[in-house]
Parts: sequence; C-alpha cells; structure tokens
Amino acid sequence: MPTATVDRASEFLGGLFNSLAERGRSLFGLTSAQPMSGDQLIALGETLLSRRGEASGVALAASLLAGYEAADEADKLAFLDALAEQFGPDLAQLNAAIEAFRAHASTEATGELLRAAEPRRQELIRRLNHAPGGTAALVRMREAVLARLASHPQLRHVDDDFVHLFTSWFNRGFLVLQRIDWTTPANILEKIIRYEQVHTIHDWDDLRARLAPPDRRCYGFFHPRLVDEPLIFVEVALTEDSPAAIAPLLDLEREPIAAEEATTAVFYSISNTQQGLAGISFGNFLIKQVVEEIKRELPNVQTFVTLSPVPGFAKWLKHERDNPDSTLLDASARTALEALDLPNWFDDADTADRLKPVVLQLAAAYFLQAKSKNGRPLDAVARFHLGNGARLDRINFLGDRSPNGIRQSHGLMVNYLYALGDIEANHEALFERGQIAAASAVRKLVPTKPVTSEPRKSNGKAGTPALTAPTA
Amino acid sequence: MPTATVDRASEFLGGLFNSLAERGRSLFGLTSAQPMSGDQLIALGETLLSRRGEASGVALAASLLAGYEAADEADKLAFLDALAEQFGPDLAQLNAAIEAFRAHASTEATGELLRAAEPRRQELIRRLNHAPGGTAALVRMREAVLARLASHPQLRHVDDDFVHLFTSWFNRGFLVLQRIDWTTPANILEKIIRYEQVHTIHDWDDLRARLAPPDRRCYGFFHPRLVDEPLIFVEVALTEDSPAAIAPLLDLEREPIAAEEATTAVFYSISNTQQGLAGISFGNFLIKQVVEEIKRELPNVQTFVTLSPVPGFAKWLKHERDNPDSTLLDASARTALEALDLPNWFDDADTADRLKPVVLQLAAAYFLQAKSKNGRPLDAVARFHLGNGARLDRINFLGDRSPNGIRQSHGLMVNYLYALGDIEANHEALFERGQIAAASAVRKLVPTKPVTSEPRKSNGKAGTPALTAPTA
Amino acid sequence: MPTATVDRASEFLGGLFNSLAERGRSLFGLTSAQPMSGDQLIALGETLLSRRGEASGVALAASLLAGYEAADEADKLAFLDALAEQFGPDLAQLNAAIEAFRAHASTEATGELLRAAEPRRQELIRRLNHAPGGTAALVRMREAVLARLASHPQLRHVDDDFVHLFTSWFNRGFLVLQRIDWTTPANILEKIIRYEQVHTIHDWDDLRARLAPPDRRCYGFFHPRLVDEPLIFVEVALTEDSPAAIAPLLDLEREPIAAEEATTAVFYSISNTQQGLAGISFGNFLIKQVVEEIKRELPNVQTFVTLSPVPGFAKWLKHERDNPDSTLLDASARTALEALDLPNWFDDADTADRLKPVVLQLAAAYFLQAKSKNGRPLDAVARFHLGNGARLDRINFLGDRSPNGIRQSHGLMVNYLYALGDIEANHEALFERGQIAAASAVRKLVPTKPVTSEPRKSNGKAGTPALTAPTA
Amino acid sequence: MPTATVDRASEFLGGLFNSLAERGRSLFGLTSAQPMSGDQLIALGETLLSRRGEASGVALAASLLAGYEAADEADKLAFLDALAEQFGPDLAQLNAAIEAFRAHASTEATGELLRAAEPRRQELIRRLNHAPGGTAALVRMREAVLARLASHPQLRHVDDDFVHLFTSWFNRGFLVLQRIDWTTPANILEKIIRYEQVHTIHDWDDLRARLAPPDRRCYGFFHPRLVDEPLIFVEVALTEDSPAAIAPLLDLEREPIAAEEATTAVFYSISNTQQGLAGISFGNFLIKQVVEEIKRELPNVQTFVTLSPVPGFAKWLKHERDNPDSTLLDASARTALEALDLPNWFDDADTADRLKPVVLQLAAAYFLQAKSKNGRPLDAVARFHLGNGARLDRINFLGDRSPNGIRQSHGLMVNYLYALGDIEANHEALFERGQIAAASAVRKLVPTKPVTSEPRKSNGKAGTPALTAPTA
Repeated sequence: MPTATVDRASEFLGGLFNSLAERGRSLFGLTSAQPMSGDQLIALGETLLSRRGEASGVALAASLLAGYEAADEADKLAFLDALAEQFGPDLAQLNAAIEAFRAHASTEATGELLRAAEPRRQELIRRLNHAPGGTAALVRMREAVLARLASHPQLRHVDDDFVHLFTSWFNRGFLVLQRIDWTTPANILEKIIRYEQVHTIHDWDDLRARLAPPDRRCYGFFHPRLVDEPLIFVEVALTEDSPAAIAPLLDLEREPIAAEEATTAVFYSISNTQQGLAGISFGNFLIKQVVEEIKRELPNVQTFVTLSPVPGFAKWLKHERDNPDSTLLDASARTALEALDLPNWFDDADTADRLKPVVLQLAAAYFLQAKSKNGRPLDAVARFHLGNGARLDRINFLGDRSPNGIRQSHGLMVNYLYALGDIEANHEALFERGQIAAASAVRKLVPTKPVTSEPRKSNGKAGTPALTAPTA
Repeated sequence: MPTATVDRASEFLGGLFNSLAERGRSLFGLTSAQPMSGDQLIALGETLLSRRGEASGVALAASLLAGYEAADEADKLAFLDALAEQFGPDLAQLNAAIEAFRAHASTEATGELLRAAEPRRQELIRRLNHAPGGTAALVRMREAVLARLASHPQLRHVDDDFVHLFTSWFNRGFLVLQRIDWTTPANILEKIIRYEQVHTIHDWDDLRARLAPPDRRCYGFFHPRLVDEPLIFVEVALTEDSPAAIAPLLDLEREPIAAEEATTAVFYSISNTQQGLAGISFGNFLIKQVVEEIKRELPNVQTFVTLSPVPGFAKWLKHERDNPDSTLLDASARTALEALDLPNWFDDADTADRLKPVVLQLAAAYFLQAKSKNGRPLDAVARFHLGNGARLDRINFLGDRSPNGIRQSHGLMVNYLYALGDIEANHEALFERGQIAAASAVRKLVPTKPVTSEPRKSNGKAGTPALTAPTA
Repeated sequence: MPTATVDRASEFLGGLFNSLAERGRSLFGLTSAQPMSGDQLIALGETLLSRRGEASGVALAASLLAGYEAADEADKLAFLDALAEQFGPDLAQLNAAIEAFRAHASTEATGELLRAAEPRRQELIRRLNHAPGGTAALVRMREAVLARLASHPQLRHVDDDFVHLFTSWFNRGFLVLQRIDWTTPANILEKIIRYEQVHTIHDWDDLRARLAPPDRRCYGFFHPRLVDEPLIFVEVALTEDSPAAIAPLLDLEREPIAAEEATTAVFYSISNTQQGLAGISFGNFLIKQVVEEIKRELPNVQTFVTLSPVPGFAKWLKHERDNPDSTLLDASARTALEALDLPNWFDDADTADRLKPVVLQLAAAYFLQAKSKNGRPLDAVARFHLGNGARLDRINFLGDRSPNGIRQSHGLMVNYLYALGDIEANHEALFERGQIAAASAVRKLVPTKPVTSEPRKSNGKAGTPALTAPTA
Repeated sequence: MPTATVDRASEFLGGLFNSLAERGRSLFGLTSAQPMSGDQLIALGETLLSRRGEASGVALAASLLAGYEAADEADKLAFLDALAEQFGPDLAQLNAAIEAFRAHASTEATGELLRAAEPRRQELIRRLNHAPGGTAALVRMREAVLARLASHPQLRHVDDDFVHLFTSWFNRGFLVLQRIDWTTPANILEKIIRYEQVHTIHDWDDLRARLAPPDRRCYGFFHPRLVDEPLIFVEVALTEDSPAAIAPLLDLEREPIAAEEATTAVFYSISNTQQGLAGISFGNFLIKQVVEEIKRELPNVQTFVTLSPVPGFAKWLKHERDNPDSTLLDASARTALEALDLPNWFDDADTADRLKPVVLQLAAAYFLQAKSKNGRPLDAVARFHLGNGARLDRINFLGDRSPNGIRQSHGLMVNYLYALGDIEANHEALFERGQIAAASAVRKLVPTKPVTSEPRKSNGKAGTPALTAPTA
C-alpha cells in the first residue's frame, strides 16, 4: 500500500515554479503593448545599460521586450542591427586594453582585455533576461536572428553572443528531466504533437498510443524559465527485442506488454523543440539520463537502442549513381538499383529481395566509409548518436515504408546501441581517430570491392543473415 | 468559499523542483567520496575540458567536486591556485588574436579576441555546474576563494570569473520570491534562525513571533538549484505607523493587529545568507518585489519604510571626537558627548534628553555630509538603501537600546522610505550628482555651524520636534 | 509581478493525495485477481464481519472486491443477492429490540432498536471501503445494483443502503471544486469528453474550444477517493448578455472576449458522471459554489443564468395533440402545429414565424401549468433548476436547431436565472406552495384560454416581444 | 540521478487539498461570529433540517457552528441537550413503524423501522458537516460532549451518534499515511510537540533529534478535512537490535546509523491527538501500514517491535501488596518489594539486582494471568498491541528510569513484536480463547507458585537470562 512519503522540502519549493511559470507567461499578457520604433527600442536599450537601468531594470526590460515583440519587421530588424553594431564592444576601451596588455601582459591586463572585448549587447541581453518572461522572449529573438542570418550576415556576432549566454543559462545543471505521459497537462501535450519531428503524431489518439500504454515512455528536458515548453523530448518503446521496423511500434492496434517484461528500451524519436535554442545541445544528456532513469525503474531492461532514420542515404546514393566514375557500384548493381526509381518498388517481394544485399552493403559504405571533409559521418543522425558514443548496431532494410522513409533513405532504418560502458571510448575513438563504432555484422557488410548484384557465393551469405541477428 | 483554481501547468512543473532539489542535494550524499590530491583535481579538470569531458561530463564533474570537497586544505588550495594560473587564458592564442585584431579590427577579430581572452577556468566552472549539486558546490568553492583572498591575492581573478558566472546564473530572472511563514518546512526555518544577521532570533518561539502573527511577513529569494537555501530574506512588520524603535516590534508579548488594518510595511531586517554569493546583488530586487507583493495583497498598505541600524555611526563619531581639529563639534558638545562613554547612559532620562539634539544633528551630518572618497554615503546600510533609490526619512534617537545597537550607533536607528515613484530619480541623483534623498525634517537637522550643546533658541526647536513627526 | 505565496501547509498535504490517488487506483492493478464464486464472495463477506476481519480487514476487503470484480455475472449476482438477504438485519435481535422498546421506550431501547434494524451489509460495505480503491469499487458495485434493479427488485434495499452510505461519504464537506481547463491532465480531460451529456464534445479541438479561451470556464467536483474522476462538472460561457441559442456558444470560430468584459456567466451544460452515484445530489452545490467562485474572480459578472434544454416538451406536446379532449389548443393551433412533423420545418422562416407565438405559449403552459402528480414541474431539467431555487427567466424559440434539440423540444431552450438572494424564497415557494418562479415576461405567455394560431390583436403582441427582452 | 517522474494526476489533485485545507480553516476565520443563545442554536438546527436547509444548507450550517463556537457554556449545553432530546427519533413515526413491522415483517418494514429509529440529530450532524471547517468543528463539539458526559449522562446517545458518523467519515479508506520529518511545515511539527503523550518532547532540538537523523522515522494519519492535524502518529527508531531501554533512543548525543544498516524498526511512541475522536480506532491500521512502508523502503528491516510503557503495573502491584490474602507473593518477596517505596531505589545496583527476578516474574503474572472481567489484558497498552495481534516479546527491567516510568511501572518497559504472518492468529486466539501471545522466555517467567525473593536454584536461572536474549 503506497504512501505519501514525498520530499516535503521539494513540495515547499514546488510553489517556486508557480512564480517562475507565472512570470514566464506574463510577458504575453502585455497584450496592450504598443509597438515601438527601432529608434525607441535602441534608446530603451541604452537606458537599460545606464544608471536608470540599475534602478528600474526589470520594468525597463519588460517594456523593451514587449515593445519589440509588438514592433513590425523593419523596426525589429533595426534593433537587431543595432545589437550587431551599436551594442558591440567599446572600441576605444578595447584598443586601450590591448595597448596596456602589450605594455605588460599581466593577469590584470588580461582581465581588462576580456572585459573590453565583451560586446555591450551581452550585458544588455543579461538585463533583458530580468524581465518576466524574458528568457522566452530572448529565445524568440534569437529565432528571429537565425531566420535573418542568411540575408543579414552581420547578425552572426549577435548570434554568437546568444549562443554564449544560452549555453550558460541552459546549462545541463538547470535542466530537469520530466516524464511526459497521459496524465500530463493538455497544454504540454499539444506541444508534443506539434513538435514531433521524426514520426508525425496524427491526432490525440495517436499521442495517447505513444504515452498511455504500460510499455511506452516519453521524457523531456524542461527549464525553470520555460516551464510550458519541453526543450527536447524522446519517445521510448519498451520491447522484448531490438526492433527492425517502425510500423509495428506505432501501430494503434498492437498489444502492449507489461513494462516488467521488457528487456529493451527503444528510442524511436527525438525532437528538439525550440529553434531559438539551435546549437545548444541537450540530446546527449537526455538520452544518458533517460537510460539511467529506465534502469532504475526497470532493472530488467538491459539494452538501450535507437530505431533511427537515415535521412541522408538516398541523396548520397543518388550522387554515387549519378557519378559515372564512382567505383562503388558495378554495372549489375547500377542496373538493379534502377528499381528504386519505380513507385512502390518495395511492395514487390522479388525486387526487394534482389535489392536487399546491394542496399545493405551500400548503407554500410555510407556509414563507415563516406565521411565529411572533417572526417565525421555524413549522416546527420549518425553524427548525433555516434558523436554521443553510441555504436551502429544494425542496418534494417525496409524498416520504414512510409513515403518519407522511402524518399529519404529508400526505407532504411538503423539501430544505434547505447552501451554506457563503451560510450566514452567510442566518443574518443571517433573524435581523435575518426573511428566509427559498429557491430561486427555491420562491419562485415562494408564492401571491399565494387558492390555487385551478381549472385554471390559466400561473403554475402555471411553478411546478410547477420543483419537480423539479435544484438549481443 | 475559496476553491482550488490553481494553475495546473505550474503544478505539473512543481515536479521539476523535486528533481532539481534532489540533485541539489545529491552531491552531499557522496559521503564515501575519497579526498583527492591537488594533482588529481587538476588532472581531472583538464580531462573535463577535453574530449572525454564531452562524453562523460556530468560524471567527471561530480567526481571532481566530490574529491575537492573531501580534499584537505593544501590540496584544495593547489587546485584553486591552478584555477588562477594553469586554467587562465591561453596566452599564445591571445597574442595571436591581438595581432589579428591589430592587423584588421574586424568584428570577427574582436570576437576571436573575446574568446581568446576568456580564461579556461570559465568553461571549467560551467562544466562543473553540470554535476548534481554543482551550483551549491561552486558557491562553497567561491566562499573558500574569498576566505583565502587576503593571503592569496592571485585568486582575485578566479573570483572575478566566479562573479561573472554567478551574476549570469543568479540573474534576477532565475530567482523566485517565496513567502516564508509558520507553515514553511522546518529545515528552511532553521536556516532563517541561523542566517538572521540584524536582530538575532533567539529560539523557535522568537522565530514564531516573527512569522506566525497576522501582521508579520517574511519573504526570501530562492534559486532553482539551491532549493533549501534562501539567498536573502527580509522580515516585515505591518503597522499603523512608521516605528521609531525596534524593541516594540520584536516584543514577544505584543498584541498583533489584523493585516487589513495596517497602513505601513516596515522592513526591519534584511539578511544575505550565502557568503559565496557576496557581491551578487539581490536586495534591491527583493525589496521592490516585496513592495509590489504587499501592495497586491493589502491595498491599504501605502507606506513602505525600513527600520534600519546605523552600523558606522559610533565609529565615525569617535573619529570626529578624537580629532581635535574637527569643526563639527564645539566644546560644549564634546563635553556633553563624554556621557556616551558611560555604561547605560541611556537609562538616565536627563542625560538622554541632553544628548538627543546633539546626536541627531551629528547623525544628520553623518548621513548627508560625511561621504566616502567616491562620494557615496559612509554608512554601509545607507549605501544600500539610498543606492536602491530610497530616501532617508527619519532619524530615531535611541531606537535600539540593545548592547549591539548602543555599541555601533549609540542607539540610533533610521527609517528609509521606499516611494516607488521616486526611486529612479533618487537613484540617479545619488549616482550622477551625489545628492542624497532625505526628508526635509532630516535636512533641517544638518548643522550649518559646529554642533553645540548650549541651550538653543529657535533652530533646534524647529528641528527636534520634526523628528517625531509622522512620515508624510 | 506575481509571487509564490502559496499556502505551504496545503502543499505539505498535497502529498496526501498522492497516497489517496494511488490507493484509488491500486485495485485495478490487481489484474491477476482470480474470479471468485458467489459462495466464496459470501464467505469472505462473513469473514470480513468476523473477528478475523478486525485483524486483517484491509487485505480481506481488497481480496473480496478484486474477486468480485473478476467474477462472472452469475457469481456477482449471487453476492448481490446475499447482500439483500443474508446480510440483512439480524431478525432475532431486531425482534428482541422491539420487545424491549415496547416494554420500556427508553432512549437506550431506541438506540438498540436502531442498531438492530441496521442491515449487516452496512457494516460490510463500510469495511469494504477500507480497501485501496474501495470507494471506486463500491460505486461500481452500486452501478451494477442499479442496472439489475428492474429485474431483481429485492436489490432495492441494498441500493437504499448504498445511498445512505454514499450520502455520508460524498457529503458536500468532502467534495472539492476544481477548475478544469486546458492545463488539466489529459486523463481527466478525456473523461470530460466521455461524460458530457448535454452537448456532445466531438473531439479534442471541440474540447479545447470549451476550455482554453479566456471567456470559458469549466468546474467539477472531485472527491479525495475518486481522484481521477470528476463527479459532476459544469461548462460556463462568460458573455455580455444572456444567450438565446446554443450554436453561437459552441461555434469553434467565434471570437472570444476578455473575461473582464463579461457581465454574464452562462451555465450551458451540467453533466453527472458516475451512474453509481445516481441520486446523490451534487448539482445544487456545484452551481452555487461556481457562482461564488466566478463572483470572486470576476466582480463584473453579475448575472448567472443557464442555457438549458427542455427535454420533455415535445413528448408532452405530442400527448396534448393526440388528446382530442385537450382544451389547451384550438383547431387553428392544432393545424399550425402539424408543421412540426415536417422535416426541417425550422428552415422555413414563414413557418417558424407562424409557429413561434403558439409554441411559446404552449411552452409557458408546459412549465407553469403542467405539473406532475406531486405538484412538481414535469420537465426534469426544470425540476432540477427550479428545485435549486432558480427562476425561469426566458423561453427561447429555436434556441437549439440540432437534431436532438428539434426532436426533444422542437428547438426550445430556456434560461434559468440564479439570483442568489432569491434562491431560498423560490425554493420554499416551490416546495411548500407549488409556486414556480418565473419572469413576468414568461408569466404573461401563459395562455388563459385555448392557444390559437389566429391573428392576434393585442395580448400576443405584448407577450412576444417580451421574449427577447433582456433579463432585468 | 533521480528524476521527476511524479504522478501528474496526483499533482493535478494536489490542488484539491488547497481547497479542503482552506475550508478546513475558514470556520475559524469567522472571528466576528456573534455568540448565539441556546434557543437560537436550536432554532437554526430545526431550520437546517427543514426545506430552507435544502436551499441554503452550507451557509446555515456555517452560521450555526460559528454561533455555537462563540456561545457561552450554558448555551452550548442547551444545544447539546437539545441534540439529546429534541433531535432524537420521531417517536410517533417510530411507533408506527414498529406496528407496521409487527403486522408484516417485510424488508420494507425493516427499512422503515431503521429510518424511523434514526435520531434526527444524525441528519443534523451530517448537514453541519457541509460547512467549511465543519468536520473540525464537529470533532470539537464531540470533545465537549465527552467532557460533559459524566455530569450529563443523557449526552451518551449524542455521543453514540457522533461515534457512528465519525467511524464512517474517518474510515480507514479516507485516512492518509504521511511521513513527518524535518522538512515538514512547522505548524504541523509544533503539534507533534504538543500531542506527544508517551515520552515528552522538550523542545525543538528534542524534536529534531527524533525526526532528522537518518535512523529515525515518524508517520501520521491525516484526513482530508483536518489537514493541519495528524490524527495519530508513531515515532520509530531504526536500530540493529531490539532495545531494552528508552533513554539511549532519546539521547540527543547518540550517534545515528545509516538507515540501510538497520535490521529492526522500533515503535517507541504512539500518540492519538484528537480527544474528539476518542474510540475511533486508527492505531491498528497505522502500525500495520508503517510496517509495510518501512519494509518497502528498507528491505533489510525484518523485525518490527515496540518499546512500550506498562502504565498499569505499579497500580496493580500495589493492589496485590495491599491484599494480605494474595497468594502471588511470599513473605520474602513482600519484604523485598518494600524497596520500591524508597526514592531512587533503582540507583542502587544491589537493590536493583535483588528486585529484578521478583519484578520480572510479577510482570509476567500481570501480563499473562491478571485479566479483566471480560478476559482481556489489564494493561491498556497491552490491550492495544495484543489486540492488534502483536506478541509480548520481552519484559525489560528498568527500561524507563524517568520519574513517570518509575511511578507507573517501577521502570518496566516491554517489547511487543509485530510479526505480520502471526497477527491474525494471535488476534483470534486472544478474542476467541483469551490466549495471550508471548515469547517462550516471557512465558517461562510466569510464576507457578508464590513469587519469592529467596535465593533460587534452577527455575529463576532459566528465566532471567532469557530476558536479555534477542528476539528470535
């Protein structure tokens, strides 16, 4: 009979969030905020950095942010441009600091140099963050900066400072892992629907099927000042083995199992939610903490694996096929691959059987041989998981028959395995020696000569069955 | 009949604090942590800044902090020294950045300069903050830095970086005002007893008398990552007029009034709690937010005033009396003031009556004329309140007859008035023109010729009664 | 800037609900519960009332309830029948108590009589309630009793005891008003969708439109032991006047107003949720408490009114039309009313215009003249609101053009007005003198001679326009 | 790294308690309540049972309770007397129901008899419970009834009805176990200090020593409508063996152990708090649920034992010594026991040694032989624990040297062992066969001939050492 032995001090402090949440929202309550002109915004920014800003900072910051949010496009841009220029470092001070440092490279002089080199906008942004709802407003402001970056390259430095400050404010230490389930408030849940990026959530029934069954989990990172917004979330299926295809996991009619029967946790979708926090990395931390959380709750779960898309494969393969000089493919393979251009090729079992060994070998080449200029994996999802220290565990032919899956990866999906004991070594091997961690079955698929579609004798035989072998 | 119309999203997020609080405490659970040597700590710091730190940062940070906390004094100091030197800026990079900037003072070059001038310890401290309990451990680390600053001046720059980062992390936007009352958990309340710095709380009955009655309030700022610790708190009495002495406010036997009858909120004690956060200013924000909070709850309360000690007055007056050249005092006044050297002089009504006009004029001189070299008030408490934009409203003779009150200020207390509409102007007048805001009754007390103890004719008459006049 | 001045003692006790909720649910976790036979259930019931039941009551109660829930229909019925017979009063004791009372009608003898007359099932049900989830299981058990009542009339007395105990346990004092909005957990919200009985909620978008806009409210009563289940809930629209039709209120595209602009709160749907609590009245309390709640939050809202269906009107009118002896209608009216039998008659403006005065007069007769045998209103919804002390404020022709609205009431809707000051008097007038409170405009509609469809001269003129007059 | 995976639905409902708590307190807010006369109270009671009570019940109930609480003694008593008489059963109805039953003993007639025999005050009390704070006010009202019972025996039947209703409302199913520790709100903790009945808590330091160390626990039952008041609480020490004396457990200077090292949970104090709930039993449930709770949290804890006072021993022994006919003692024992009348006899080791075997045998006789008329143990604490199914496990000579311990039990303490598997059998053996469960070592102490203080040969030898043997 469970009892209420909750941590009372935490309950006491539960009230704290009321306040943060309230303030997080109050900025939007300024519905009557008048739009401000660019000049007004800039003048207010200067005031906020002045003496008066010390006395009335919170109110000034709130006014500026509300006026900015209500402003029209041109005025917003004028303010952002001013951030880039007018609120840059004080060049006179900087030059003086440099001279002083050159005269005598003392620690004092270094400190002075650091202070002088800091753009004034950093302090301005810090002060804007005092406002109720300030953090959320600044995340939106950076979203605007990012959206204008291509056409207004001078905003690059503004963006750098946002990244610098956000990295500090959204420090792992300030993030909180929260389970999201069917008892989560609807206003949070509707954001899960909206933000899901990998396998679209079609409606509330679909959402329920991902959250409510006993063999499903979802976790997100939240921040004290953006309380209604998960920053990132991951969807997890608890299973009895490592899955090779996504459709059975998402099937609304499937029979759930008891959580205690599961041996495997499958991370089948990870979505970032805040464009304004692009480049501030949470996913690495999220997966590791979820692994620990599930281990603690369900000691039987020993295997932690993803079921991941391969978003860059079709594009890469097209490039190889378009390149007559590529030695990756022999003529038979090139001919065989033409089937990929037919609609619904995958519904024909013979075609699929014929393509399977060719595609798997090419996929192994894509993951293990085809690297970017800086020696990292070509595939964005691979970069993320391998960079986190996971290992490429299995390549699944026709794991995703959805239109999007067929289009971007000819239906391929892969499993990345998170073995906590190996993460550090895998991470170092990748970044220091460019070595990609992969299961031996995957490794054996890597072609040592042009991939062929001719009948194989022994090599292929060895490779293909291994693809379906369970993870060790 | 009140109902439960709480904000559900906030409740959802109440759970967040469970996690933050738990993590805030978990570092201390590392009771079995082995002490580390200085070399081990430094090596771990370098690892944390390296590739491996990217993969296993949270665990590494937790190990370093636990090993540091368990280490002995010499090893701790070795680590702190390394923060000052080894983890300073990369000088080669810095020089290169300077040269590049001198060659072409582009924004890029400025950005590079900023990055190169940043000491490596800043990133190290940011990564240490990833650990469970990291923020609290870093606050304690800075407390250690401060304690060693006098004897190890090289730590000054480490301290600067702590201040820089803490200012960002303990940004007003991340602080939460929480009311503290008799329903607050005991583990928080015992810290109120411990941290009270102005008027000692003698025991739990004394505490109860400050929290439980309907005409008492206490508010503190909390931070999501230091959840059991108020960062600063203020004790408030709700009264029917501005009080001239502290004893009646603290009297355990006094009759409380209904909160709705109060017209005045008296801030009679403000205490900072974390030495490791010295110099990160919260008090200004705290008072202003408490004013708004009380206004909202109790619209009848229109006057917001402190009852404050004058910690520097006795020392300053001694200095004047010891200075034979001082023109502040005439001979009669000097003679009269000798009574202050007698024990319990204040118990003699005649003595007190005789001293009152002299002391009040001197106090006016102390507040309004005797400034520090940089033109700010001499008195630390005055600097705080006047710097916040308050006005010196009244000087109370024998407002504090406690031994401490007699010793540090010959029993003087003062009221600072927070009139929200004037705060900005007062603040600017002080910082830009050195003008101290004071009530006219106070202003009239300022001596225009040497203070005398001779029988006065008219001037004194005008001044003294005004001292007891109610605040307008 | 709002702050966290929540009631900490309540927070402390928030944890209590964790426990109650957990227990409320844990019974359903007994998925492995074996079904029990009727004999086993009865034997367990006897054990629970015996000595062993004193020592191990909670476990025994949980076993019995789990075994009952898993049992098949015949065994359940056997147990329910035993409740009716075997667990009735001890007749020997009862006869002895009667004899004792007749010998000497002392208070002691009365007390003994009371005890002896109490069926043993009352104590059994009280002990079953000790089980985790016991209250919910007993509510379901009574639902089963109700469902079998028609075919098993002996269960009537079992039902009486359930009502007696539930009335005590679901006492107004134990119910909690909770606002339900878009931040409410989804598992609660899906029950709102499921339980809505008046105007079907079609999907989550429809639900959102009733909960999220600033001019919408929803409140429910919850009970500490049925925490995931609202017992009853009411949907409220905040408007600028008393509405005459439902469609505009439910329109997904309508423009919301600010809550502060509203003058009127419209209760447009009230739904009970637990069939097992039928006859335990909450609605009366709910409406009155919501009125107080809204008054407190929005002082501008002064008018509290329903927009209610008239479920019995069409049936009653058919009865009148079928009765050739009815003097309520003249021939012209009978002819005119034939239009009601045509599909979509209401889409024809001429028809509608012609029917309007006839239907309104008939409706007035239905509400004010046609009473049940015991002198109460015929209409079930009218009985509820008028019994609560509301007044019939306006009859709205074609207020509900939905198929259901047309079918049950020829499209009529009415407004009942809750004027708190009149509630007591209205209630007493109804129950003691059979007087129905109605606005004078409604009263004037009551026909004093057979209703006619002939062109009217003056009387009808006076009546009709009044129908659209605003509530005074 | 723990995370926030709290039950969100419970959080949602946490808000419910805000409301209940608020209402629980609001009655006391009626400070301006005018006292009412007895006649007014009685008239209001009749109104509450009438038609008007249906319409305005909550307000009427609140008025009556507030007026009652403010009334003076005579008026209160007049109201209580009216409860006994005027609000008794309707005798005319009752007689009619009896006649109907005698004419035909149908189930209907039985039901009617039950209704007619129910005193009208039951419904009145149920309606009073609708008021905010009603439950608490009714508990206080019953406290007043109990206090007047001796002088006003007619209130006995009012008390019976309170017990009947409270048993239903304070049903085990509505109680919540809550851990009380150093993070509990101070307003709850001060009640622990106030209500502790067994071993006085001297001050907050003493309280802290019982709540904060890792090897201490405290749990209480709370009720949703009395949220600031534990109904009963138990203090628990986690130890490595079953303790024989209380002083070491309460020693402020003792060294705590880690909870994980404990093998034994010692219930060393159980206190009921509400006199108005006397006779509504919670202790049985509390101990059993705490056993389950501790087992779940600390699987190493396998032994659950009390360290209990023996409040009736000294009185019983005096009675035996005063009775010259008692065959329990021989002359030598009578002489030896005279030492008990000396002050501080226990400080003399020789005296204590000599008395020990005599006192232990007498204690065994007291527990196992000396029963009350109805065959139950004489000792009130023994009745409670043995009635719960515990076993008398060990008698500890000089376990409590406090003045109270010496006075009431000559320093004896005992351990009762709760072995969950035996509880049911022990309970039945006691109530059906009068058998008291005791360890064999205790059993061997029971004297089979008059207790002597002469030097013993073999019997005593066997018995005494067993007293210090560990619990099997």
